[in-house]
Amino acid sequence: MAKRDPFLEAAIAEARAGLEEGGIPIGSVIVRGDQIVAQGRNRRIQWGSAIRHGEMDALETLGRQPASFYRSCTLYTTLSPCPMCSGAILLYRIPRVVIGENRTFLGAEALLRSRGVSVEVRDDAECRELLARFIGRFPSIWNEDIGLPQGGPSAEVGGS
Amino acid sequence: MAKRDPFLEAAIAEARAGLEEGGIPIGSVIVRGDQIVAQGRNRRIQWGSAIRHGEMDALETLGRQPASFYRSCTLYTTLSPCPMCSGAILLYRIPRVVIGENRTFLGAEALLRSRGVSVEVRDDAECRELLARFIGRFPSIWNEDIGLPQGGPSAEVGGS
Repeated sequence: MAKRDPFLEAAIAEARAGLEEGGIPIGSVIVRGDQIVAQGRNRRIQWGSAIRHGEMDALETLGRQPASFYRSCTLYTTLSPCPMCSGAILLYRIPRVVIGENRTFLGAEALLRSRGVSVEVRDDAECRELLARFIGRFPSIWNEDIGLPQGGPSAEVGGS
Repeated sequence: MAKRDPFLEAAIAEARAGLEEGGIPIGSVIVRGDQIVAQGRNRRIQWGSAIRHGEMDALETLGRQPASFYRSCTLYTTLSPCPMCSGAILLYRIPRVVIGENRTFLGAEALLRSRGVSVEVRDDAECRELLARFIGRFPSIWNEDIGLPQGGPSAEVGGS
């Protein structure tokens, strides 16, 4: 088996840490050059947060940056980014997004692509398995916020 | 002069409070039925936050809610919502957005409308004036995050 991209590995480590805390196992890292400049994970359960998805948590950890900073960054995330996180990617004009998987939930990938963002999906088994464990244990939590059927929608939410 | 909508008035009160703190004067409230259920304002300067725009701050103040909750809400915001905040509106399927003004910055209104969100723009003079005062004093802060020309773009950012 090919060695996993170390940046995706770091995002998955955040997702694992989230699951260990009882949270939704979705993690993200922001990479600039060959350095991780921010890491984050979904905090919905841990902090009762409606906006701290993994991607948003990483952006917030990174703090206030100039516009030029984001334009040389890549965002890694274990799950296809929802419309809010995709909007943040567009706002800050992050040019490249690497996604662990999009089978459990298909976010606004088409919107990102339509605006020129480079989107790569790695279809990583562990990204799926971490979420499957969470959803199996807590289906009502997975479904509470946006009311999707368990296992995700068949059509893109908030996409093109 | 017609009396201002009390919910827009409450959003403007948040923007004024932000300006008094030295922050970017953009405020939001979330209304359900005839009650304000959350208020928020831009915290970029005050908290060094990249994600706490007025709309996001109100959503975070509201905390973790079931999907059905948002579908009977209206979001009031003093400035046209950026792609991130518009994405949050789409994520939570908030059906109606009332906007103070969209001359200083035109957000993703076309995207919202294309997904069936009701969008009303009130073109409120005080919403514009509060931002003009901030931008006049701190043009480099206004421009730092997304690198737009002062006074806003002529074309919609992250829109259709």
